[in-house]
Amino acid sequence: MAARTPRPLSGFPELLPGERVVEEHVLDVLREVFELHGFAGVETRAVEPLSVLLRKGEIDKEVYAVRRLAEVAEDGATDGGATDDVLALHYDLTVPFARYVLENAGKLSFPFRRYQIQKVWRGERPQEGRFREFRQADVDVVDAGSLAPHHEAELPQVMADVFARLPLPPVVMQVNNRRLVEGFYRGLGLDDPAAVMREVDKLDKSTPARVRASLVDGVGVGEREADACLALATLTGAPGRTDFVEQVRGLGVRDELLDQGLDELAAVVAGTRAVGGDDERFRVVADLSITRGLDYYTGTVYEARMTGFEHLGSVCSGGRYDALADDGRTTYPGVGLSLGVTRTLLPLLQRGLLRASRPTPTAVLVAVTDEEHRAASSAAASALRARGVATEVAPSAARFGKQIRFADRRSIPFVWFVQEDGTSEVKDIRSGEQVVADPTTWLPPAEDARPRVSWTDEPTA
Amino acid sequence: MAARTPRPLSGFPELLPGERVVEEHVLDVLREVFELHGFAGVETRAVEPLSVLLRKGEIDKEVYAVRRLAEVAEDGATDGGATDDVLALHYDLTVPFARYVLENAGKLSFPFRRYQIQKVWRGERPQEGRFREFRQADVDVVDAGSLAPHHEAELPQVMADVFARLPLPPVVMQVNNRRLVEGFYRGLGLDDPAAVMREVDKLDKSTPARVRASLVDGVGVGEREADACLALATLTGAPGRTDFVEQVRGLGVRDELLDQGLDELAAVVAGTRAVGGDDERFRVVADLSITRGLDYYTGTVYEARMTGFEHLGSVCSGGRYDALADDGRTTYPGVGLSLGVTRTLLPLLQRGLLRASRPTPTAVLVAVTDEEHRAASSAAASALRARGVATEVAPSAARFGKQIRFADRRSIPFVWFVQEDGTSEVKDIRSGEQVVADPTTWLPPAEDARPRVSWTDEPTA
Repeated sequence: MAARTPRPLSGFPELLPGERVVEEHVLDVLREVFELHGFAGVETRAVEPLSVLLRKGEIDKEVYAVRRLAEVAEDGATDGGATDDVLALHYDLTVPFARYVLENAGKLSFPFRRYQIQKVWRGERPQEGRFREFRQADVDVVDAGSLAPHHEAELPQVMADVFARLPLPPVVMQVNNRRLVEGFYRGLGLDDPAAVMREVDKLDKSTPARVRASLVDGVGVGEREADACLALATLTGAPGRTDFVEQVRGLGVRDELLDQGLDELAAVVAGTRAVGGDDERFRVVADLSITRGLDYYTGTVYEARMTGFEHLGSVCSGGRYDALADDGRTTYPGVGLSLGVTRTLLPLLQRGLLRASRPTPTAVLVAVTDEEHRAASSAAASALRARGVATEVAPSAARFGKQIRFADRRSIPFVWFVQEDGTSEVKDIRSGEQVVADPTTWLPPAEDARPRVSWTDEPTA
Repeated sequence: MAARTPRPLSGFPELLPGERVVEEHVLDVLREVFELHGFAGVETRAVEPLSVLLRKGEIDKEVYAVRRLAEVAEDGATDGGATDDVLALHYDLTVPFARYVLENAGKLSFPFRRYQIQKVWRGERPQEGRFREFRQADVDVVDAGSLAPHHEAELPQVMADVFARLPLPPVVMQVNNRRLVEGFYRGLGLDDPAAVMREVDKLDKSTPARVRASLVDGVGVGEREADACLALATLTGAPGRTDFVEQVRGLGVRDELLDQGLDELAAVVAGTRAVGGDDERFRVVADLSITRGLDYYTGTVYEARMTGFEHLGSVCSGGRYDALADDGRTTYPGVGLSLGVTRTLLPLLQRGLLRASRPTPTAVLVAVTDEEHRAASSAAASALRARGVATEVAPSAARFGKQIRFADRRSIPFVWFVQEDGTSEVKDIRSGEQVVADPTTWLPPAEDARPRVSWTDEPTA
């Protein structure tokens, strides 16, 4: 028979058990912090009607349509795909959440704080930090009618608490305000702020000269106005400082919407002044070039990059959306932040920078003397588990040396021996120390109870 | 504007926040017990090549194919769907796991113990306990070359530990062995054991007379042999007892494979004698009618039903598979059990039998005197969170009575007041008792720290 080893699917990453231990730790921290801040966990189905997805997003052809094989067969050659009732995999968690809020509005109490940690799918070209199936972790606050602005300063604090508990590189979160930018363009007399925004958004992948040329030749912006747009986009504030307000005013543009946006941005940056503490592991700065691609954002927008890993793009993004959820009677404005769990972790795992102390939860392997005495080993294992010690029984009654090597290969720290007289001994296979122990009282040291996750400065790649 | 309240999608259930608290609790217990037994968490991508899924399963047209909208558009009217490189959503976690084992065999150590808790998709007709998107929780042990039989008695013990920690109805797990059944049919001289098994498998939805008729008229089994098949299928053992062995032998059929299957089944039932303890919350019985639909099982098969909810069908199923993973050089036999999380929980949630004490993690709401003093409330909240107390700050500086009602509506037990002089008081809004408290030392009673999940005998529906 020919070898049939399956190959990975590009863009659909999977983790080895040790890497999964790291991811589970990160997910635990995310959930813990989100719940400490009073966010309720919500999960939405993986699919939405295609019409819902295409109405809200801008990513169009990247959506994955989903059809029962039976339907595909029935339709046969007449299948065009994009009919209204076609289902598709969600490409983010914001659009499904907005739909969930509308669907359940009568059963939720507002403002509603939710977190949501799920896979999403986008048919993009895979590259480092960009996947076709990946996990996001979102926090949003949504209210009915109007949403208090203080939530826009609250969310960066929540994410700062997440990063404070994880062994990750320092993060810089850039904040801007779409009203500010749109007001600035209006103040310049430009008719199509969205078109200008799209060009300016390309600054990080292009050069100022090229963006200026597109503005003048493509969008029809005057030369002086194009210079002003570029001048605005290059303004950044110091961490936690609102000095950018004076700099924007210095550009000489006057507009009511601009003033509102400036006030809002100043409030967010001032409100996050204490974020991250003194160690500069999470800094919030105003950056007037940030606009975010998704067109449902209306006010504050956020992007965050990991220091030393800026090439991955934003690992944590979001913003305020005022019109995403609207049932014709009530509008549900919201603000949210989304952490790209896969984008953040995969590059660090691939470089060997994040590691688990072992690829299994097992802290103790109970040795088996011979198959007739397996029940005695199982009883000791049950006693250990009853007190929270992750324990497995050796799969075979091989020589003890072989059973110890079995534990060692998985970095299981302890091997347990049940003696003929019913007493037990436990060996720390790292030190070789072996002591008498009682399965109803013995506990491993706290640091060995579960796999530990740590940052290492000795990358493997 | 017309009202645009979205409607639920049949077969794609979503939970309200309070229901999700129940589900999260169950998922926490599953993970905890699986890890205590030394199973490593694995997650596979949601999609597999269609060819992988159709080779292994029997559910064919229920599979959901997945295609990028861009591809659908390119292919246009020529789209037939079922080409070899088409991707599809997985319909179980066993087939993807077998593929994962083959793909990563060189990086895993065997026997490999893994758990996997994920959504799966099947395009079945939705009904109670049957969904198109649902969550399963699987544990499997896979070895390279050969798999020790004691793992077949181990897995029911793992699930018994799960159910012992959950407020769910008692469970009866029925066990059978395909070798036993196939050997019995062969001993009767029947040529096509698979065809006979398919008919006998319909016993729970049909009558013995009708199954007998199909065997005789459809499959061409003799009348005496058909009676013997039915006699075998009606045999059941007492919990933990191997008395069925004598009963099977009493049917007078002799076959080598039958003997092997009988020995294996007796070993599993004897090995699980201690399972569930004295409270009969989880009993394991031999039931010679069970065969399982999926055709990759080769030996032991399991099904489990909840007492009082037998109409839901099996909530926890699995078996031994000897040839699912095979790379042409090595075979990786395994045994697994899969708990239908959604199938188990949804009917209980819909009847109001399982409830969370509150729909939010928040234990303390910090009141806000006025917006100018929000920072003082936020500081108290941070101090509480730093010691693990889930805390949110009131969304608006409304009258205190209104802020207390806001907490009450979500069953948040405590409201915290920061006084002008910097001291604090905390009110238990259930008793009305209000005491002086320090956010750096105060803790809620342990039972209020997180939402509690309980079984109630006062169903709402």
